[in-house]
Amino acid sequence: MFSAMYSTTAATEATDDRAWLREMLRVENAIAVAGAAVGRIPPELAKEIEAACEPSRFDLEELTRRAVASATPVVPLVQDLRALVPAAAQPYVHLGATSQDVVDTALVLIARRVSSLVLDDLWAVADDLAELADRHRGTVQIGRTLLQRAVPTTFGAVCAGWLAGVDDAAVRLSAARSGLPLQYGGPVGLGVGTQLTEALGTALDLPVPPLPWHTRRQPIIEVATALAGVCGALATVATAVVLLAQNEIAELAEGAPGGSSAMPHKRNPARSALVLACAHQAPGLVAGLLGSQQVELQRSAGGWQAEAPTLTQLLRLTAAAAAHARELVGSLQVDTAQMLANAGDEHASQDAAGPLDATGLLVDRALEAHRAARP
Amino acid sequence: MFSAMYSTTAATEATDDRAWLREMLRVENAIAVAGAAVGRIPPELAKEIEAACEPSRFDLEELTRRAVASATPVVPLVQDLRALVPAAAQPYVHLGATSQDVVDTALVLIARRVSSLVLDDLWAVADDLAELADRHRGTVQIGRTLLQRAVPTTFGAVCAGWLAGVDDAAVRLSAARSGLPLQYGGPVGLGVGTQLTEALGTALDLPVPPLPWHTRRQPIIEVATALAGVCGALATVATAVVLLAQNEIAELAEGAPGGSSAMPHKRNPARSALVLACAHQAPGLVAGLLGSQQVELQRSAGGWQAEAPTLTQLLRLTAAAAAHARELVGSLQVDTAQMLANAGDEHASQDAAGPLDATGLLVDRALEAHRAARP
Amino acid sequence: MFSAMYSTTAATEATDDRAWLREMLRVENAIAVAGAAVGRIPPELAKEIEAACEPSRFDLEELTRRAVASATPVVPLVQDLRALVPAAAQPYVHLGATSQDVVDTALVLIARRVSSLVLDDLWAVADDLAELADRHRGTVQIGRTLLQRAVPTTFGAVCAGWLAGVDDAAVRLSAARSGLPLQYGGPVGLGVGTQLTEALGTALDLPVPPLPWHTRRQPIIEVATALAGVCGALATVATAVVLLAQNEIAELAEGAPGGSSAMPHKRNPARSALVLACAHQAPGLVAGLLGSQQVELQRSAGGWQAEAPTLTQLLRLTAAAAAHARELVGSLQVDTAQMLANAGDEHASQDAAGPLDATGLLVDRALEAHRAARP
Amino acid sequence: MFSAMYSTTAATEATDDRAWLREMLRVENAIAVAGAAVGRIPPELAKEIEAACEPSRFDLEELTRRAVASATPVVPLVQDLRALVPAAAQPYVHLGATSQDVVDTALVLIARRVSSLVLDDLWAVADDLAELADRHRGTVQIGRTLLQRAVPTTFGAVCAGWLAGVDDAAVRLSAARSGLPLQYGGPVGLGVGTQLTEALGTALDLPVPPLPWHTRRQPIIEVATALAGVCGALATVATAVVLLAQNEIAELAEGAPGGSSAMPHKRNPARSALVLACAHQAPGLVAGLLGSQQVELQRSAGGWQAEAPTLTQLLRLTAAAAAHARELVGSLQVDTAQMLANAGDEHASQDAAGPLDATGLLVDRALEAHRAARP
Repeated sequence: MFSAMYSTTAATEATDDRAWLREMLRVENAIAVAGAAVGRIPPELAKEIEAACEPSRFDLEELTRRAVASATPVVPLVQDLRALVPAAAQPYVHLGATSQDVVDTALVLIARRVSSLVLDDLWAVADDLAELADRHRGTVQIGRTLLQRAVPTTFGAVCAGWLAGVDDAAVRLSAARSGLPLQYGGPVGLGVGTQLTEALGTALDLPVPPLPWHTRRQPIIEVATALAGVCGALATVATAVVLLAQNEIAELAEGAPGGSSAMPHKRNPARSALVLACAHQAPGLVAGLLGSQQVELQRSAGGWQAEAPTLTQLLRLTAAAAAHARELVGSLQVDTAQMLANAGDEHASQDAAGPLDATGLLVDRALEAHRAARP
Repeated sequence: MFSAMYSTTAATEATDDRAWLREMLRVENAIAVAGAAVGRIPPELAKEIEAACEPSRFDLEELTRRAVASATPVVPLVQDLRALVPAAAQPYVHLGATSQDVVDTALVLIARRVSSLVLDDLWAVADDLAELADRHRGTVQIGRTLLQRAVPTTFGAVCAGWLAGVDDAAVRLSAARSGLPLQYGGPVGLGVGTQLTEALGTALDLPVPPLPWHTRRQPIIEVATALAGVCGALATVATAVVLLAQNEIAELAEGAPGGSSAMPHKRNPARSALVLACAHQAPGLVAGLLGSQQVELQRSAGGWQAEAPTLTQLLRLTAAAAAHARELVGSLQVDTAQMLANAGDEHASQDAAGPLDATGLLVDRALEAHRAARP
Repeated sequence: MFSAMYSTTAATEATDDRAWLREMLRVENAIAVAGAAVGRIPPELAKEIEAACEPSRFDLEELTRRAVASATPVVPLVQDLRALVPAAAQPYVHLGATSQDVVDTALVLIARRVSSLVLDDLWAVADDLAELADRHRGTVQIGRTLLQRAVPTTFGAVCAGWLAGVDDAAVRLSAARSGLPLQYGGPVGLGVGTQLTEALGTALDLPVPPLPWHTRRQPIIEVATALAGVCGALATVATAVVLLAQNEIAELAEGAPGGSSAMPHKRNPARSALVLACAHQAPGLVAGLLGSQQVELQRSAGGWQAEAPTLTQLLRLTAAAAAHARELVGSLQVDTAQMLANAGDEHASQDAAGPLDATGLLVDRALEAHRAARP
Repeated sequence: MFSAMYSTTAATEATDDRAWLREMLRVENAIAVAGAAVGRIPPELAKEIEAACEPSRFDLEELTRRAVASATPVVPLVQDLRALVPAAAQPYVHLGATSQDVVDTALVLIARRVSSLVLDDLWAVADDLAELADRHRGTVQIGRTLLQRAVPTTFGAVCAGWLAGVDDAAVRLSAARSGLPLQYGGPVGLGVGTQLTEALGTALDLPVPPLPWHTRRQPIIEVATALAGVCGALATVATAVVLLAQNEIAELAEGAPGGSSAMPHKRNPARSALVLACAHQAPGLVAGLLGSQQVELQRSAGGWQAEAPTLTQLLRLTAAAAAHARELVGSLQVDTAQMLANAGDEHASQDAAGPLDATGLLVDRALEAHRAARP
């Protein structure tokens, strides 16, 4: 009942057990391709391995069950993959790799995929905010600090601030996403600098890091904090909608507010609540991932194994937050008359005159930055 | 691939969308039963509602999709439930309830179910630890603080400490579980003290709180911190196994250690790693739930909606931790000769003589407390 | 500049380096007293030790500096304490204790002291809420869910909910405080059941646990989650004040609202903001403490050492939250006319009639529970 | 007793109430300087303000006490500053600024200062690691995954991994530090693009952001996650020391291990434990800051006010972690013979031959990257 509230269909399909099987096989397949490309695997045996890396040839439930015994799904996966190829090809399966290489690289592929989905929604949100900022550059609204009326601003300036926040978050996620590297260090992280590594990076279209990152989890942290940044930027917008949609304020409303099971008259800010519900879960997940930075020698017993499920959950929640925010912002109802009425006497005060002149410049800057950032 | 590492089959089935549908309908059904019992619903109409509260009559995917629009699955669920009963019965569907009543009470039912599963495993772990404590009350082992050799203890005393930890955690989870109350406050939490409320508590076998707890999330926090306590107690055992299974120490080993995809000789403490991986995720989830304690007026927009998925995830992880720990402790290999050898000279020292005499008493106390706590 | 916002003078004095010195010496003093009482220390030598346990005889700065070398202040403290007594008494200093015994027990004494301060403020808050609940049992107010107008309630019922939350939090903190036990396990946690232990518990007026709790941190977790529960209960009240003090709603106001450095007209809900600022920091601190539950063999290298500063910070923040809340609730301004006006048409609706009748019972129950809980 | 374990003298002096007063006055002073520079304040009146911005002229305790009433120290600070200047200058005090401008900019100045201290220690740690990596490029050591012996590596390669982690963390902190911008948005964040803003940025040597960041807390998050990254990188080194200093492994030892209050023979990895104790607290603090990203309209009531104390605590802990790590790494004892002995048979195995050849390249790459990153 809840799954569509806290993930999207696309994000779920990109992160579920089926997706993990697909991406892990993609890594094993790429190892065969790369091994053949640099002469480390006879081409005809590499072809056998590539052909075997087909998800439908594996029993997902059985693999999932057997993953427990070794605390990693890679052990049974490699066993079954070997069983699918001729004896001559078996030594070349999983060549030079260790479990962590496959899990980390598959996690990178998954994180890249979901981040793309998030970015699609995020740029759409940003475009809508840009339009709102431009349209409402002259719409006077009372500014509120500590939830008390302060001095006037414009709704355009407010949207410009949201836009800058969403743009920043998108740029940062985009950079973190692009920086997610190949992992191919072998048992204790010594794989480095070989032609094979480069070929594998090429096969998977992933950057090859100067050193393996078995014990340096910065790439995971980067993408996780970028995702939390997305949640934070969107939550700021959603918080504003919830607050400004209060009946006594009534400056904003959701385009399709939610109903209530008990009160027919309710117009709940449902999309905003969902954005906030997703965002609310992000900080704790990031804290968990930050704790995994502390690695025990060449691979942790526990901390590392907690990363994949935690990042997966964060990816799903961020995807949902972005999708909900896109709906929210795309259909946001703005009552400019109410904004003006609420601005009241403060609007006329001389103190406000100067600053309000500035809001046009502020909007222009946000729009300019948006155009520059927009891919 | 990962799902069996971070949940159990039973915990997943008790917490997935299907389970939520089942438990929500159980609540709606109980409202009809209770309403009839106290004369608020005509018996024949109550029967109609009860008959309609059958999960197979609902389209789960469709409900899940529609839940998004109102930020709660209860709105479409009640719509569809009303559509399944005669017009005369429709006003009695969901009588006196609001969405939060159904979600909170269903969450309580789910938490109780999974907590029972956890407790089953936990008591089995405790029984095994009690046996180990008793058997090894004379097995000398070097104590280690800050991971440095300190003075001797016995492995029995160490197990007694673990036992006390697991017993405490089980007792606390059991109490938190039993305290999980019915929620039935209506739209703004005014439902209280009526016969109907009492009848509903009876129908669902749940304690009726003196006041609704819409805005006081203590029951959720209690069960969440109890679950985190379980994770902590089990993680202490798993940490010890990982450390004492190091090749140079070799005092403990898992009964069925895990393999490696790259190194055939590896005997990985796989179950311990999984316990630790699950436990690692608990603190961040609890932090998220603690944040939801801060309620906005009569119902939060976001914080409350984040509770169900977060607690669900914590329930699954704790169930997995307990199941893995049961396997781990149930087949733990103890090398008493190696323990004695590692204890070395310290064992003979006079300083140690007195304290070691005390370990028997310590074991006795833990066993006695275990027998008293064991249901 | 900030210290009075996030702690109270009393809480700071009960938790600073000077307090730690005082409480650690109190523990060492009690060991001498108890040792003499059970015949383990010659009475005249015990007197020497007791006389030396005088904070003014120690160089606090120097101790603090030297604490770093052993990752604990107890090592230099015991060195200096030994240097203050005759040679014959030196072997009896710190008898049977290890560093952790002194730190844990001192932390317990500190936590008990600050919890008392918190409870004083908390019960005062509860008393004020009880009065508000009683006075406003007939004051109609519109209930708001997801920050949207729902159906009417009374402000008395709302206060009753807050009261129940604060009472629950106080009861739980009180229980956690009382349960904080003596730690006296010696080097590897084998100290147990001796007369000396009992005498030490008597000397410090602390419960003696059946087993040492070196490796079971439940008492710390209990008090920490109880403190977070206090923060949550108070944050719910503060959130309501912030929301209901919004100019367009104007149902509540702080008795002495804060000013602005830039806007003379501002009436900021300053006390509420401080309660929320303190409460905001609690979940992350609790998460840190939950992570320390996972103990490495007989004492962690890192996790345990993180507990004292984290719990100290949580104690200070909770003390500040309670003190701010006491000011806030004690001088809360309630505009009943505005509440009635805001309730509007919903008030007259027939749907609301029944539930509103229930609010008196709800208030009565909360008051009754308060009287029963109040020490 | 604990303060030197969880902060450094320099970090404490850079973050205490005295430091806040100093930095806030630095901001007010710079406003006067900048105002005069662009003709917005008569030069002679600016001089009066500048002269008054002298910490010794303020009563710190009194300010701290009065800060509570407005939930910000800026209100009393500006009052007292105005009282120190002639009436003609009073309107120019705090020109165009709001409380948040002063707090945010002072926080930025404080964070920059402490980050510099951290970076000094961090680069020293990195230099030492570089030397260790180079010196031990041929020192065979057994790699350990899940704390089980895996295949050989070299200690040089291990140090290279640590070096890369510390370098990355330093580069990231350096970037986050440099990016910390001026805040000067006025009451509702409309200050932008004026000459005055540019002049203020120049006066304080801070980057001027295109828009105020009142509602976009990314700069705080960037520096916080960078600090947590530092903690994580250092904790990985400290964890390794703790594990490899276990008596049965004995490959590493601290140069000046800590003693025990109860066991004279103990050689505790005290510095490592302190690094870990500090690092342990970082994730929860970051989670708190991530929660503050969700801003309420033009300024939060609570979330924003929680940032300064949380970031301050994180700065102190990271400074302590870096200082402890510098001591630790600078005097690390490496037992190469023991490493070789522990490597045992695995060393001779043919599987290991190839990878070990790679470690030289890995060390070279890390050293090269270090030289490129080192300022």
